[in-house]
Amino acid sequence: MDKLYVIKIGGNIIDDEQKLASFVQLFSGISEKKILVHGGGKLATSLAEKLGLEQQLLNGRRRTDAQTLKIVTMVYAGLINKNIVAALQANGCNAMGLTGADGNAVLSHKRVPTEAAGDMGFVGDVDDVNVDFIKSLLEQGSTPVIAPITHDGKGQLLNTNADTIAQEVARSMSSVFSTELIFSFEKAGVLRDAADDNSVIAQITPGTYKTLKEQNAIFAGMIPKLDNAFTALKAGVSKVVIGKAEDLLQLIDGSKGTTIVEQ
Amino acid sequence: MDKLYVIKIGGNIIDDEQKLASFVQLFSGISEKKILVHGGGKLATSLAEKLGLEQQLLNGRRRTDAQTLKIVTMVYAGLINKNIVAALQANGCNAMGLTGADGNAVLSHKRVPTEAAGDMGFVGDVDDVNVDFIKSLLEQGSTPVIAPITHDGKGQLLNTNADTIAQEVARSMSSVFSTELIFSFEKAGVLRDAADDNSVIAQITPGTYKTLKEQNAIFAGMIPKLDNAFTALKAGVSKVVIGKAEDLLQLIDGSKGTTIVEQ
Repeated sequence: MDKLYVIKIGGNIIDDEQKLASFVQLFSGISEKKILVHGGGKLATSLAEKLGLEQQLLNGRRRTDAQTLKIVTMVYAGLINKNIVAALQANGCNAMGLTGADGNAVLSHKRVPTEAAGDMGFVGDVDDVNVDFIKSLLEQGSTPVIAPITHDGKGQLLNTNADTIAQEVARSMSSVFSTELIFSFEKAGVLRDAADDNSVIAQITPGTYKTLKEQNAIFAGMIPKLDNAFTALKAGVSKVVIGKAEDLLQLIDGSKGTTIVEQ
Repeated sequence: MDKLYVIKIGGNIIDDEQKLASFVQLFSGISEKKILVHGGGKLATSLAEKLGLEQQLLNGRRRTDAQTLKIVTMVYAGLINKNIVAALQANGCNAMGLTGADGNAVLSHKRVPTEAAGDMGFVGDVDDVNVDFIKSLLEQGSTPVIAPITHDGKGQLLNTNADTIAQEVARSMSSVFSTELIFSFEKAGVLRDAADDNSVIAQITPGTYKTLKEQNAIFAGMIPKLDNAFTALKAGVSKVVIGKAEDLLQLIDGSKGTTIVEQ
């Protein structure tokens, strides 16, 4: 099977024009098949603030009401996605921006309200990835660039977590490509000490993950990423790496970042 | 050659949720290959106003400065394009939203400032349409939905007239498909009397166009559309029709609207 890299680029890099430009250059240099999934960054929040739109927090999480959905659709699928696509094209990478609605790439459903979480509004939980469509884009030399917006197939766009999209796309594509999933962001990997970028844990297995959690040695923010990683590995993804966006090529060759493996 | 319809949908329809929904339904029912090109509507202007962004007018035309470019990218490529794509998907049409940057679909250059027009800012004049890429999308059953944003291949997005994109796409695609170009908007066609929707001129040839212009019987706003139409016909487009969005199927079968032919 051909190799495929599914690479998630985190929000903080997107907010930094120079870091994003460097990342785009590194990413364009990858000669294998590749998919980019990008997060949203702080632009949507700052646009909402400028428009005087109050952010509704439910148990500390942002609720996506109809107005907020419009804003994230504009910022994620419009401003961020198209600027990344244009920058990739300028670097010789034939990028193709997508939401889940385009080509029915990622189908989801509106999250069912629960007593614990409340009604999160127009938030999507992924049901299906269109493997045939994404495969055909890759095989004709395109590089899909996926924004964190999906649809329900009934005309409704839905705000969807980019880490989850990356994981779902990677596990689905692993049926047709030898797929590696890379979460790149501003930190050097999973750290023993959040303040020390040199404390990267080079490798995590299900066993060491259990121990690290018991020791409270992993920060809350990393838990969903690691859970996503193990889910992806179980579903056929061959390798998951977490690390710094500017080390992208070293994350790929395994010399930097945290590698998550199923043993 | 297979038949292809390139259909431009105008701004006023996009601003009207109900009319847009009806149009999407009609469009989805077309069984031949088809491409939708959409305009921008008034949403970008109203967002700019809400953000307190002053619109710069140059000889009555809106200048696209860096901030305005961000807004039109958000509104055209994000909000409008993705909502149309999701609505088409819900109607069983496998839509695929594109700017000119995606798949390098439409390449343009920043308009050169002239003494007469001044510097229009980040406005694009189309240089090239990627026929192979659009053809491959059509042949795998996708329906391209093109937003009026292009790129220069060097990382710069550019605000680009949707009528011009429709015309350039139609003339380029006419090398591989038997292509018809349809401009659909809020009026019933080219009218003898702007106030009377029953005064549609059923057919315009280069000869009658000349006469109509000499008689001042055509409104200024229609001239660029008609010039575009004749340019498209000269370049190989087989037919151009102008008419009401809600009459889309009658525009296709030739029973309504204004048909422009080269005789």
